[in-house]
Amino acid sequence: MEFSSKLLENAVYEMSQLPGIGKRTALRLVLHLLKQPKEQTARLAEALVNLKDNIKFCKNCHNISDVEVCEICSNPRRDESVVCVVEDIRDVMAIENTGQFQGLYHVLGGKISPMEGVGPQDLTIFSLVDKAKQGKINELIFALSSTMEGDTTNFYIYKQLDGLGIKTSTIARGIAVGDELEYADEVTLGRSILNRIPFENSLKV
Amino acid sequence: MEFSSKLLENAVYEMSQLPGIGKRTALRLVLHLLKQPKEQTARLAEALVNLKDNIKFCKNCHNISDVEVCEICSNPRRDESVVCVVEDIRDVMAIENTGQFQGLYHVLGGKISPMEGVGPQDLTIFSLVDKAKQGKINELIFALSSTMEGDTTNFYIYKQLDGLGIKTSTIARGIAVGDELEYADEVTLGRSILNRIPFENSLKV
Ligand SMILES: [Zn+2]
Ligand SMILES: [Zn+2]
Repeated sequence: MEFSSKLLENAVYEMSQLPGIGKRTALRLVLHLLKQPKEQTARLAEALVNLKDNIKFCKNCHNISDVEVCEICSNPRRDESVVCVVEDIRDVMAIENTGQFQGLYHVLGGKISPMEGVGPQDLTIFSLVDKAKQGKINELIFALSSTMEGDTTNFYIYKQLDGLGIKTSTIARGIAVGDELEYADEVTLGRSILNRIPFENSLKV
Repeated sequence: MEFSSKLLENAVYEMSQLPGIGKRTALRLVLHLLKQPKEQTARLAEALVNLKDNIKFCKNCHNISDVEVCEICSNPRRDESVVCVVEDIRDVMAIENTGQFQGLYHVLGGKISPMEGVGPQDLTIFSLVDKAKQGKINELIFALSSTMEGDTTNFYIYKQLDGLGIKTSTIARGIAVGDELEYADEVTLGRSILNRIPFENSLKV
């Protein structure tokens, strides 16, 4: 693509760095912004920078939160002895939506992936194991997507918990193997939490 | 969607104001930015604001340009007596890509659309008619999309040129080169039969 303006080219280039946004789509988005009042572009820019500059994570569950301990973790009616291990905030939102889960979460921030250079130390696994060793957790529910990376991560954590007497389970899969949690419908996802199975059982498959 | 963070919610909201970007996609894009170095977000924000603040349009053809008169308009080898009327910069880029056009462009900035409240005064039509009245234009090529709005805009301009003795044409509509006839829509196929050209002419391309 040859642009008649460096300013335009630059904006399109930066926009096209976002995943799934090609040069053509980026140009369409940028031209749209050009037709809107200046304030819209300013608000978008400010919101992104503001988030990036001021983002905080809950001290306990590592979910994105504006306060030190998130609303879920600080809710006295939630059962802190049951912890659901998820990849990111989208999974928390998806599970909260079902209304089926009354425990707490632990947000890993990703999955172990040697291919992408993500090891246990890049995630919040040690913090989870710490909590477990403090005897705070009775049951751990693995809710990572059932990919090779998800299974590897589950198993890594499972081994770390050896001898702590913690019950482990994985959410039941009523949904196709390989599907992302966030795209599952609420009913299926809710049921898969209610029907969770012991982790050892999932290894037999 | 219920967010655990106002900062995140705000960023997702602003991102989802872009056309074709739903809340879910917006969340995915924002979470991606959160995983990247801070500089990427800063560069994106700056590029957008910088473009919006400093954007200029060519005095002659109204295309986006960093200089007063764009490269195309100031190129002495281009034929300024032939002007191609297009909607926006994407059309200029597409036609330039073909290498088949040596005239100049006139960028309208949109199409007349009573439904969306876009009238002739919102476009650069008066500037085009001015140029025409100054006797600078021998031929005008309409290259707007063949929608009702495109046809309305073409016709409005056509009437304004009445009596100026300017040759007008529209780009040929037909089956794309290499496309199978059976997959073409009826209107396009019908038009391509009505607008058939002498076989000898097709050999010259
Ligand atoms: Zn928390
Ligand atoms: Zn120009």
